[in-house]
Amino acid sequence: MSKHLRIIPLGGLGEIGKNMTVLEYGRNQIIVDCGVMFPENDMYGIDLVLPNFDYVIENQETLRGIVLTHGHMDHIGGLPYLMKHVQTTIYGTPLTLGMAERQMAEANVLQNAQLQTVGDKETIHMGPFRVHLFPVAHSIPGSVGLVIDTPAGTVVHTGDYKLDETPAGGRTTDLKRLKHLTQKGVLALLADSTNADRPGRTPTEQVVADTLDELFAQANGRIIIATFSSVLARLQAIMDLAVKHGRKVALTGRSLQENVALARELGYMKVADKVLVDINARIADDKLIILSTGSQGEPRSALNRMAKGEHKQIDIHQGDTIIISGGTIPGNEEDVGRMLNKLFDRGANVIYGPLATVHVSGHGSRDEMRLMLETVKPRYFIPVHGESRHQHLHARIAADTGLAADHTFILQNGAIWASDGERAWLDESIPAEDVYVDGRLVGAIGETVMRDRQRLSQDGFIVVYVPVNGRSKLAGEPQIISRGFVHMQESSDLIELARKELKRQLQRKGRQNDPKETVRNTLQNFFYRETQSRPVILPNIVRI
Amino acid sequence: MSKHLRIIPLGGLGEIGKNMTVLEYGRNQIIVDCGVMFPENDMYGIDLVLPNFDYVIENQETLRGIVLTHGHMDHIGGLPYLMKHVQTTIYGTPLTLGMAERQMAEANVLQNAQLQTVGDKETIHMGPFRVHLFPVAHSIPGSVGLVIDTPAGTVVHTGDYKLDETPAGGRTTDLKRLKHLTQKGVLALLADSTNADRPGRTPTEQVVADTLDELFAQANGRIIIATFSSVLARLQAIMDLAVKHGRKVALTGRSLQENVALARELGYMKVADKVLVDINARIADDKLIILSTGSQGEPRSALNRMAKGEHKQIDIHQGDTIIISGGTIPGNEEDVGRMLNKLFDRGANVIYGPLATVHVSGHGSRDEMRLMLETVKPRYFIPVHGESRHQHLHARIAADTGLAADHTFILQNGAIWASDGERAWLDESIPAEDVYVDGRLVGAIGETVMRDRQRLSQDGFIVVYVPVNGRSKLAGEPQIISRGFVHMQESSDLIELARKELKRQLQRKGRQNDPKETVRNTLQNFFYRETQSRPVILPNIVRI
Repeated sequence: MSKHLRIIPLGGLGEIGKNMTVLEYGRNQIIVDCGVMFPENDMYGIDLVLPNFDYVIENQETLRGIVLTHGHMDHIGGLPYLMKHVQTTIYGTPLTLGMAERQMAEANVLQNAQLQTVGDKETIHMGPFRVHLFPVAHSIPGSVGLVIDTPAGTVVHTGDYKLDETPAGGRTTDLKRLKHLTQKGVLALLADSTNADRPGRTPTEQVVADTLDELFAQANGRIIIATFSSVLARLQAIMDLAVKHGRKVALTGRSLQENVALARELGYMKVADKVLVDINARIADDKLIILSTGSQGEPRSALNRMAKGEHKQIDIHQGDTIIISGGTIPGNEEDVGRMLNKLFDRGANVIYGPLATVHVSGHGSRDEMRLMLETVKPRYFIPVHGESRHQHLHARIAADTGLAADHTFILQNGAIWASDGERAWLDESIPAEDVYVDGRLVGAIGETVMRDRQRLSQDGFIVVYVPVNGRSKLAGEPQIISRGFVHMQESSDLIELARKELKRQLQRKGRQNDPKETVRNTLQNFFYRETQSRPVILPNIVRI
Repeated sequence: MSKHLRIIPLGGLGEIGKNMTVLEYGRNQIIVDCGVMFPENDMYGIDLVLPNFDYVIENQETLRGIVLTHGHMDHIGGLPYLMKHVQTTIYGTPLTLGMAERQMAEANVLQNAQLQTVGDKETIHMGPFRVHLFPVAHSIPGSVGLVIDTPAGTVVHTGDYKLDETPAGGRTTDLKRLKHLTQKGVLALLADSTNADRPGRTPTEQVVADTLDELFAQANGRIIIATFSSVLARLQAIMDLAVKHGRKVALTGRSLQENVALARELGYMKVADKVLVDINARIADDKLIILSTGSQGEPRSALNRMAKGEHKQIDIHQGDTIIISGGTIPGNEEDVGRMLNKLFDRGANVIYGPLATVHVSGHGSRDEMRLMLETVKPRYFIPVHGESRHQHLHARIAADTGLAADHTFILQNGAIWASDGERAWLDESIPAEDVYVDGRLVGAIGETVMRDRQRLSQDGFIVVYVPVNGRSKLAGEPQIISRGFVHMQESSDLIELARKELKRQLQRKGRQNDPKETVRNTLQNFFYRETQSRPVILPNIVRI
């Protein structure tokens, strides 16, 4: 490793620098965040997507610690996997670290982690890096951005932020501290690009609180609110509104209960004991708010079970007001739509997205990005945390503020941005392919298996049993079994025709000698001709 | 069939009355529209979803004709399938019928259809039904709504509409004619619910034209516009703007070329010959507009091929302005996002959704729905063309206008709404399960096959070959083959362990006698324990 500063984004499923960023100077490495992604719709059977940890694990003797910006899964969810392989200190504000600790405890890897709580305006010494924290407004309390002094110059990493002036909990992004910490100049800015295609400013969280206040005033019956279990700032606002409107709050969903318990324990949430009730408590409908997970229509979530009439304690009925207080994550639209339909069918009054402002983003929009760029005035700019289109759009905002085009670097996964404090360039990338998790299998599912699953999902498969004698000649009846192709009984004519055609081809004189090839070619052609489908065909030639 | 009016919505994949509506009086049946749906993301391998035609086919001797409201696929795309089975007259305005004719010609079913062109203010006599057309503003020219006089009273079917006052082509919804046709009172209103969750009015199409005008003025290089091939009114606006900005227009994509040719031939589009150029013509970048399909990120569309660098004629480069002038249909977000990323990576300036108003809906919003209800003043209201949540929200708008709750009917697929002209009730539903099309297979893919595909897509499958002797005892080495489960070579240890475990179980004394059960149980337990996956397991017991 050279005596240059090197910055390496890892993971993020195309969202560069979202899950994890490595900073390196000489034989010293620090990591910012360690998150996971949830799979896209066409990533069949995959539960989670991890950053590639190979480089970090190989160089673990140089690792000076991990610093976390906030407690969302895309920033801490990779720790249970990484911490199986390395031992190091993890720094974060109390809530962030509390959430990370829970993740690691469940995976039995806590013994490898030394947890170090820090205040949101503290400075951490990590080898040659001095990491100064500054508070940022985001949808979870205890979020911070980082000003990292390195021997080559200062690097600013915004974390996830918005410049909300009336956020829930009153915690604004501390631009004054940021300005103070960066007064000697900034070598590089890594900034959140999530909403680079949203003009203006992201609406303040206060709008959501006001809308909820109105909806609470109108509701005559039970109120059920579905939201992300991690938007703890909004949960606080809901608790306060519950008190105002004389209602109790019941929580359903394990992650909600755990997060609220943790936030209360650490002082991030202030809720009187008497406000919270058990889901089984007998409370009049018009005195009750039920907080639930499932704003994304997840099949097994509490709200979806209510929609399907499968929730043990809660039976949706006329008079219920259901508020979906979470934006739909791209890819979940169909699941959410189906759930909403079912909730309406049960007679509930459902308030969602376009009908009222019951959710706002936790990320800043274009005007906030411009303000961040103007505040930090970096020499080099690296748009992160966003897909490629967001990075490009963020880069154009930087260009508008006067930054030269060749001072902006749009990085790929595993790219290495390097600088001597004056110039900046790209070193040769490291291999950094995302790692798929399927149940207990980590990394065992690669592109081949995914392609097979994709093909199986389209046309199913056919297994053909062909008994042959010593001279590879057919020595009995071929058998065809299929799954996911056509209904075997209802399409028995088709299968019988295929069997006859196969037999004819296998018995033909002068045919090629490999019966496997004959089976594959014959059936592929036959079924494509008859059905325009291409099921996976597995010949099973058995010598008898 | 009784002497009552009966209205039966069919198809629509949960969007009631979108694809097809049957009206019946005595032994007389007419059909409004005959469309198809495109599958949702989890409908593995399905190409199209058809309404269930069984009832119509069984009662075809009572069929007095089909009337089409407009030429979109969700309203005409089912004709190639239905017209294989029935002979009847099909009515529509020239463009609608021209598009339907092309569909039927490709499927070789034209001989069963008698095509009858009608003006958009004409009246059609169909048995005891008198069907009066009235023009509506929608994203395709020649769209109409229907006022249907029946012996039991008048039924209004809005078709797809918005109350745009400055639509492309200047064709507004003719509320005056609607009012005139309905002055004797309306028994039932069937109205478009698509945007029942959008407050206010849908922005006028003129906004899109204005935005495009601005973007054209700013563009220095080539302009590429991706839109739906069926939004012919917008295509006209683009042609006019091309002339204004001194540019030629090249079309790529078969459906675009065919639709433009048809619309020009029938006089719905006015474009001078010299404006249109071949995609291979040598035109300076700043004098060219390329119109393309692919606004949904469809893998094989022209724009996606450009994004991937696989388009034969068009190579995206810096200086290109690419405008995505089509809203993203729910479920396509991930495909669209990936395509946008690639276009940006090629250096293009891409304008899409949130960045500028380059698309507006062709369906009216809540205030337009209210106005429609107030104009028609129906005795009974049947919200159609929308999912369940939209029907419910539309019903509430009706309630706000003063309609009694029990005069609104939210129908299911195959429900029968019946009326004697005074009262209204539901007759027993008919079986109307949607029919899946997979390649040439129509209806052969049911729930079982879909479930198999779903499971295969998650965990793949394992085929186990077990040679046994006459007493069902293992008589050789069991073999395991898998696809879509794990990578066979990289996971050979796991497979070998499974094989050994299986052999041990098969050789155990006193084990249950059916080797198939032993194989299934052993491997299911083994793999779930080791991987938490549940691949489909197919035992193949061969007596040797």
